[in-house]
Amino acid sequence: MKPFENLVTLSKEIARLSSMSSLLHWDQETYMPPKGIEERGLQLALLAEMIHKRQTSPTYQKFLKILTRSKKLTLNEKVCLREWNRDLEKNTLLPTSFVKEFSKVTSQAIHAWSRAKKEDDFATFSPYLKKIIALVRQKAKYLKYKNHPYDALIDFHEPGMTTEKLDEIFSAINISLQALLKTLKNHPEDSFLYQPMPLPRQQELGHLLIDLLPIDKSLFRLDESAHPFSLGLHPQDIRITTRILPNSFTSNLFAILHECGHAFYEMGLVQKYYGTPLGETLSLGIHESQSRWWETKIGKSKAFWQFFYPYVQKAFPEALRNISLDAFYAAIHVVKPSHIRIEADEVTYSLHIMLRYELEKDLLTRKLDVEELPDAWREKSRTLLGITPSTDREGCLQDIHWSMGELGYFPTYVLGNLYASHFFCRFEKDFPQWEHKIANGDLSFIRSWLQRHIHKWGKKYSPEELAKKVTGKPLSEAAYVLYLQEKYSKVYHV
Amino acid sequence: MKPFENLVTLSKEIARLSSMSSLLHWDQETYMPPKGIEERGLQLALLAEMIHKRQTSPTYQKFLKILTRSKKLTLNEKVCLREWNRDLEKNTLLPTSFVKEFSKVTSQAIHAWSRAKKEDDFATFSPYLKKIIALVRQKAKYLKYKNHPYDALIDFHEPGMTTEKLDEIFSAINISLQALLKTLKNHPEDSFLYQPMPLPRQQELGHLLIDLLPIDKSLFRLDESAHPFSLGLHPQDIRITTRILPNSFTSNLFAILHECGHAFYEMGLVQKYYGTPLGETLSLGIHESQSRWWETKIGKSKAFWQFFYPYVQKAFPEALRNISLDAFYAAIHVVKPSHIRIEADEVTYSLHIMLRYELEKDLLTRKLDVEELPDAWREKSRTLLGITPSTDREGCLQDIHWSMGELGYFPTYVLGNLYASHFFCRFEKDFPQWEHKIANGDLSFIRSWLQRHIHKWGKKYSPEELAKKVTGKPLSEAAYVLYLQEKYSKVYHV
Repeated sequence: MKPFENLVTLSKEIARLSSMSSLLHWDQETYMPPKGIEERGLQLALLAEMIHKRQTSPTYQKFLKILTRSKKLTLNEKVCLREWNRDLEKNTLLPTSFVKEFSKVTSQAIHAWSRAKKEDDFATFSPYLKKIIALVRQKAKYLKYKNHPYDALIDFHEPGMTTEKLDEIFSAINISLQALLKTLKNHPEDSFLYQPMPLPRQQELGHLLIDLLPIDKSLFRLDESAHPFSLGLHPQDIRITTRILPNSFTSNLFAILHECGHAFYEMGLVQKYYGTPLGETLSLGIHESQSRWWETKIGKSKAFWQFFYPYVQKAFPEALRNISLDAFYAAIHVVKPSHIRIEADEVTYSLHIMLRYELEKDLLTRKLDVEELPDAWREKSRTLLGITPSTDREGCLQDIHWSMGELGYFPTYVLGNLYASHFFCRFEKDFPQWEHKIANGDLSFIRSWLQRHIHKWGKKYSPEELAKKVTGKPLSEAAYVLYLQEKYSKVYHV
Repeated sequence: MKPFENLVTLSKEIARLSSMSSLLHWDQETYMPPKGIEERGLQLALLAEMIHKRQTSPTYQKFLKILTRSKKLTLNEKVCLREWNRDLEKNTLLPTSFVKEFSKVTSQAIHAWSRAKKEDDFATFSPYLKKIIALVRQKAKYLKYKNHPYDALIDFHEPGMTTEKLDEIFSAINISLQALLKTLKNHPEDSFLYQPMPLPRQQELGHLLIDLLPIDKSLFRLDESAHPFSLGLHPQDIRITTRILPNSFTSNLFAILHECGHAFYEMGLVQKYYGTPLGETLSLGIHESQSRWWETKIGKSKAFWQFFYPYVQKAFPEALRNISLDAFYAAIHVVKPSHIRIEADEVTYSLHIMLRYELEKDLLTRKLDVEELPDAWREKSRTLLGITPSTDREGCLQDIHWSMGELGYFPTYVLGNLYASHFFCRFEKDFPQWEHKIANGDLSFIRSWLQRHIHKWGKKYSPEELAKKVTGKPLSEAAYVLYLQEKYSKVYHV
């Protein structure tokens, strides 16, 4: 076998082990009996160790060296080589002892965070967070960076992205959103969205939505879990979950649209490339662009509800019989700053991310001590959202990410919105009649378009290159800001 | 670390990988999207390879050699050493190339069998079965045996069992059962058992049964699958499935009792020994004794239905309102020879196994050619059951086992019945009032007794030793035959 074929074999084995790890996670969140948790943690740790061993094995490195020296590579082989080398670098820069320590500290910290959040007691979490911040600083050093330690963290999830670019993007978004927010004062009526709807009816409605989406059900499933998520085990086995809230029935529907966006991406990968970089999703930001596309670009379009609202009305006549499509559409666009990120509306969502981004940078560069975090959070919340949380539970204890050592992750949520709006410019040009098609229940052309322009490429291009390839222009916040301004000015009649 | 501790670490890692393999199987049978099947096969093959590598690794063998030479071993260490050496022998006797070939041939044969059964076309399966029989003969040679090649196969599943002992047992059972069968002619009325019962009500009734059994639900789940099964991922995560037939509601209830018997065994293993032979179930026969215990000894006792029949009547009043407990009890004991093993009654079940056992031996020793199998099946069926199947689908294509290369497996089903009756002699002595307790809904004392006398020992004793330890007597068919004779004579008033 040639070195490339050998590497593909090894790479596929790693993909298969990761796929098992995904199944173990899926099971943990859906059906695992609660007492299985401790042993599940040990199983996942064992898999992680086996994966890391393979990713850094002498055989793997040997073949990679041979391939790197080779001069007769096809374009696809070059792509794989680039990504394999990039992964190897990331995987070897972190010493095994560090990875173990990191995993030990964060697994304790997650428990501490969970308790601290429950009891709104930051003091008990603070010592863990201190350790984590120290470890993350060390991690950034190991991973190397040119200008800012945060660069090393963000590049991990979004190759090519830098703190400098993020600063620029976030600052521009902030100015525009603050201006927009000031104009959105006369809120449409939306109380009818929060009437109790029986769970079985919500489940049925969710499955009906799935039936209307362009999904091959023989490679897909929908389940329920505490937090919605999606997992692609491989292109022939994709699973999503939703969460059903008794008093907020749209939550289930938007969760399904969001997770289906992720699922379409996984389904759209080219199967013959499974287990190689050409068959892998590109970045967290691009992944999030696909979920936000279906949740907001499609799922919050008037056209979609022209098609789907009658089904919802039929499922929930008690609450919606006298609510017009226009009234419903306005209600799902109410913008009100609130404390909880995952419940935030489309306009204020990015502000929640900026808050975290700025605190992360300050913690990393020692501008901020962990003890000062609760106050700093309140201050940033006041500045960015105009409101101050009265508890740390709604403040700096809100998200699990920091307890997992995941700094540099939050910005990918905003990047997802940016990419979605950026790609949408081209989509609108290709399908000027897109709203008409959707209003008539045609959704498959959207999935085909995304597959053709984004999914099928795997990791062939960098996120930056892909952004340019699709629209001809580099990524910026312009399309996203314009989308929010136009849409919300219209809904709010300003 | 001492060699024993090292071996425990390695053994636990193997157990963890096997546990993942179990989860992958569970998922495949319950929730996996159908198109996931091909990749799932590759995942399972990868896991099997990783497990086999660890079971035969030089490090593992080195520590085992050191431990074998050691003279200061505790009793528990000696048990582990014995079992580890036994496993190593089995795992190293089969060359890797043979294991791969076996796996390749059987995975093709399973598909061929499935098609052949569907189309009732033995000729298309026959070439595969020929290959399999040749491979199984070779397997027996590799595994070594003293007297009969079948010894090597049965010992694999039931350590210490031999063809000679099986011949003796089966011959005695056959004589007694044939005599008993002749007397069971006036069948009780049982048509009311086969009225359609809505699936949701059957599901509810199944969960109610689970609620009444002594099960900690935080480490257990019940799902549905095409064929009922149970899987212990580890003592804190045990899963069973049932199958719900629209026109035979007792099928679901007996499946649950059967699988819960397996589940109790897995739950009853001592957790601190997880991953070592002391925390493993003893043999297939002993495992089956636990399922048959709950399905037949308890689940077909009058006492159990005194307790549970009112619930069933309440769930299914249309069919059972006018059916007395006695009539119901008689109906679930109707004995009629039929073609399908898994639908057979308690009395004829063993005859189905003998049929297969004798054909397996003849195939193995070349007394029988694969081409002659359909005729031989019909002939044996006539002799043993008094009926002749009109299709191979109901004959030699009935079971999946041979296509999987699993010869030597069927007898463990009968051994399970034998062990169950054997153990029950002691149980009756310990609890002369057992029927009274059960009739009052007390079932937990049964599980405790089984845990104390069987589950907690893991692989400490051989099946033979355990049989003697519990009752003071070696295993024989006596208790089983007596149980059937007494019970069915009573039900049939003969």
